[in-house]
This record gives sequence, structure tokens and C-alpha cells, in this order.
Amino acid sequence: MEQHQLAKIDNAVLGWLEEARENVYINLQSALMVSEKANRKDLVTNVDKSNEQYFMRKIHALDPEAQILGEEGFGDAIKNMQGHVWFVDPIDGTLNFVKQHDDFAIMLALYVDGVPTMGWIMDVDKNLTYHGGPNYGVFRNSEKLIIPENLPLSEGLIELSGNRLVHHQFRFEELAEASLGVRVIGSAGMSFIKVIEGKAIAYASKMKPWDFAAAKVLLETLKMPITTIDGKEIDMLSSNTVLGATPAAHSDIVRIELA
Amino acid sequence: MEQHQLAKIDNAVLGWLEEARENVYINLQSALMVSEKANRKDLVTNVDKSNEQYFMRKIHALDPEAQILGEEGFGDAIKNMQGHVWFVDPIDGTLNFVKQHDDFAIMLALYVDGVPTMGWIMDVDKNLTYHGGPNYGVFRNSEKLIIPENLPLSEGLIELSGNRLVHHQFRFEELAEASLGVRVIGSAGMSFIKVIEGKAIAYASKMKPWDFAAAKVLLETLKMPITTIDGKEIDMLSSNTVLGATPAAHSDIVRIELA
Repeated sequence: MEQHQLAKIDNAVLGWLEEARENVYINLQSALMVSEKANRKDLVTNVDKSNEQYFMRKIHALDPEAQILGEEGFGDAIKNMQGHVWFVDPIDGTLNFVKQHDDFAIMLALYVDGVPTMGWIMDVDKNLTYHGGPNYGVFRNSEKLIIPENLPLSEGLIELSGNRLVHHQFRFEELAEASLGVRVIGSAGMSFIKVIEGKAIAYASKMKPWDFAAAKVLLETLKMPITTIDGKEIDMLSSNTVLGATPAAHSDIVRIELA
Repeated sequence: MEQHQLAKIDNAVLGWLEEARENVYINLQSALMVSEKANRKDLVTNVDKSNEQYFMRKIHALDPEAQILGEEGFGDAIKNMQGHVWFVDPIDGTLNFVKQHDDFAIMLALYVDGVPTMGWIMDVDKNLTYHGGPNYGVFRNSEKLIIPENLPLSEGLIELSGNRLVHHQFRFEELAEASLGVRVIGSAGMSFIKVIEGKAIAYASKMKPWDFAAAKVLLETLKMPITTIDGKEIDMLSSNTVLGATPAAHSDIVRIELA
């Protein structure tokens, strides 16, 4: 797509995010309706659902031929990445949203024939949106971001999934030990933002497509690899154990995983 | 001490914190001077040192008879808790300060004959100071805080030390599993703030006196117990494995630790 088309889409999505954020704070003025999904730690609220339905309507109006994959299931059953595919995570870090009212994100991404095209991650509490793509650049609100310093694993903080760390999976303890320190935020979007800003050198977790689709666009635009944790290409239509990192930390981590 | 004396001290310290915060941001405009203390993950910067020296001067001027215990060693070699004892952590979460420029705190506390009297924890990035004491109340800047809901371990997020979690110490994995989820911030002050605000139900870590002195004042004022992780009284002049929590989560955690 050409620059002016990307800009048009970007402006539209930034407007939706602003409205979705207002919806979040209107709902926080009364009691959230919270229910469990897979287990007691996997929650969904009325806001997850109303945000997702809102984005579905907006995407259909802007891009009627597109397929949409959304966390709460209001989208399509997608079989392939042909044409325009949108990924929607209406509230990422729902536990944080419910318990903390901060450290949660809203994420969208657009892929065209499988090519990462545009991504959006909004830190809702701070009202900061990280957005852009390979033919557009990466911005924090209106400020253009630069490529973070290419630090190795030993010289940076690493963001990991707390649940996987506690269950001794994916050699996470070894990664934590080799880094300067481990951090656990509880939101994929908020963790990827730390990598985008150069505050952490890597983030790894087992994730669903809506958890990593936007970050893949933004990290690759900033010349940071994002693959499976053993260095393979990500399947955009299934769960993956995903690693996004500086190039140096990425190769350090893949080496540990394959050892 | 009487209310008006506490208010006078509180106003003085809030002014020092404002100046110390300015010093932080002035120093962040040029390269920090970073050096290692015990190991490569234990850092100190010129700002830790200049802030501590600044607080020493201010405390001496306000309270000339007081003993002062400071992280960077510019204070006194304290043998007992008689009279006025001040605790100073000039930058808490130094790794976050160096790598992220956020999620770090400045902490001070005043004990009188061993009695927790006033505490201050400043979230420097957000410019929010949590301050007060048992004869004063607890405030976030000028807003009075209420006692958080008394949730059990199973219904809240738990803040833990990442390093201890990775090293399988203090049954941290069991605590994480029993909670709704584990979070790791990398700063004692920032973790205690989550408990003070009711965003997490507990925080536990091995800590030095300047890491927990202010939180002990604030949590106890909010009717939340803070003890060693096996439920004993904290020794204010040595390292302790400290647990601060809602009453319900505190008893859940101590039960697990003693099982």
C-alpha cells in the first residue's frame, strides 16, 4: 500500500483507539462484569467484549473485504492469510485491567497477503499509542521512534511470562540468570512496549496471534527480530512461543534454547 | 509527636523529594556514571550518591540529633533504634533507573524510639508520593488513601523478587501459583506502592532496612501487616525476608511458608 493509504488507515485506527479508551474509562466508573474463560486466572470482562465488537464494526466499515481475527471470538474463522487480515486484542492484560486499572493494552494489526503492514499497541493508562509499519516508520503518539541500541542478553532486562517462569518452561530461568534481571508485567502489549522503547532487550511468552501480531509489525520495522523462541518463523494463525528482541539478545537467547 | 510537628516534617520532606526529583532529571540529560557494587546486577550511579548526600544534609539541618541509615553508606553506623532514626533509599530500583528511566522510587522513613512514625515513597516517573504515618493518615500527593479491600491470596496479584523466584527460594513458586498471577517490577518501593493502592495483595522479597522502612510505616497505617515471611517481627537494623500484605493474604502466605 502507498503512504497516503497507510496514513488514512492509521488516522482511522487512532480515532477508534481514542473512542475505545473512552469506553474503558466510562465502564470503570461502574462495576466491571467479570467472568472466567479457561480457568480462574483467565478472565474476560464486558469491556473486552464491547471493545471487540466496536472494532469489528469499524473494520468492516473501513475495509469490507477484510478477514478479522479477534480474541473474544466475534471475528471470522480464518483459514489463510490472503488479502487483508486484521488482528484485534480488545483488552490485553485483562487481569491487570481488572485488578490494577493500569498496565493493560489495546492492540490491532493489519497484514496484507501475509505481509506485516501496520500495527497499533495502546498503553491505555498512559494514553500512549505505538503505531506504524515498514513503509511508515514507528511512532509513539506523534513522535517518531528510533531503533534501540543492539544490546546483548547480558546487558539488559528481560520481560517474561510469569506463569511460564513459575512452571520452569522454555529455559526461562536460564534466560533470567543470563540477563541483568527479569521483569513480569502480565500483558504482552505492555511487555513488547518495553522492547520497542529499548527499556528491555527481549520479551518471550507463549502467545496467541492477537498477542503478537501488532508487535511483529513494529519490532520488524525497528530491525528487531521476532520469531519462535527457537528462531523459526511464526505461524500467524496459531499459538507460538514468541521471542522479540534486539538482534544481539535474540541470537543469545536462541543459542540457549537450542543448546 | 503531635500533628503539627508531623505536618512540618512532612512538608519539609516533600520539598526535598521535589528537589531530589529535579536532580534525577537534570542528571538524565547527560550520561549516568554507573558502577557495580556486589556484582554486575547490583549497580550504583552518581545520582544514588548525590541524592543520598543531599538528604543527609537536609536531615542534619532539620533534625540534628537524629541517626541516619542510608543505602550508599553516607549515614551513620547505627547500633540501636533509640531517638530519631531516619532511613534513606536515594534511588530504589537502580537497574530500572539506569535501563528504563522509570519504575524506580525514592524512599525515606522516620522512626522515633523504634516506633514507625512517618514514611515517604516517591514514584519518580509518575511524580506521585505516598506519605504519612499512624498519627497522620496515608496520602498519595494530597489525596487521602483508604484501606484496600482485604482480599485473600487466591483473589489477587502478588509482587515478588524476580531473583528469588528464579532461584526457587521462599516457596515463591507456590505463592505465585496460589495467587491470581505473579508480577515482578524490580523495585521494592514500586512493588509496595501496588500493595498500598490495593492493586496487588502482597509483596515479598529479601530486603535491607532502607527497602522496607517507609513501607512498614505506610502499610501498618493502612492496617496491613508487614513482618518477616514467616510472620515474625522485622529487625529494623538488618536484612529480612519481608512480607507486606492484606491481612487475609498475609495469613494465607505465612501458612504456606510454615507448612
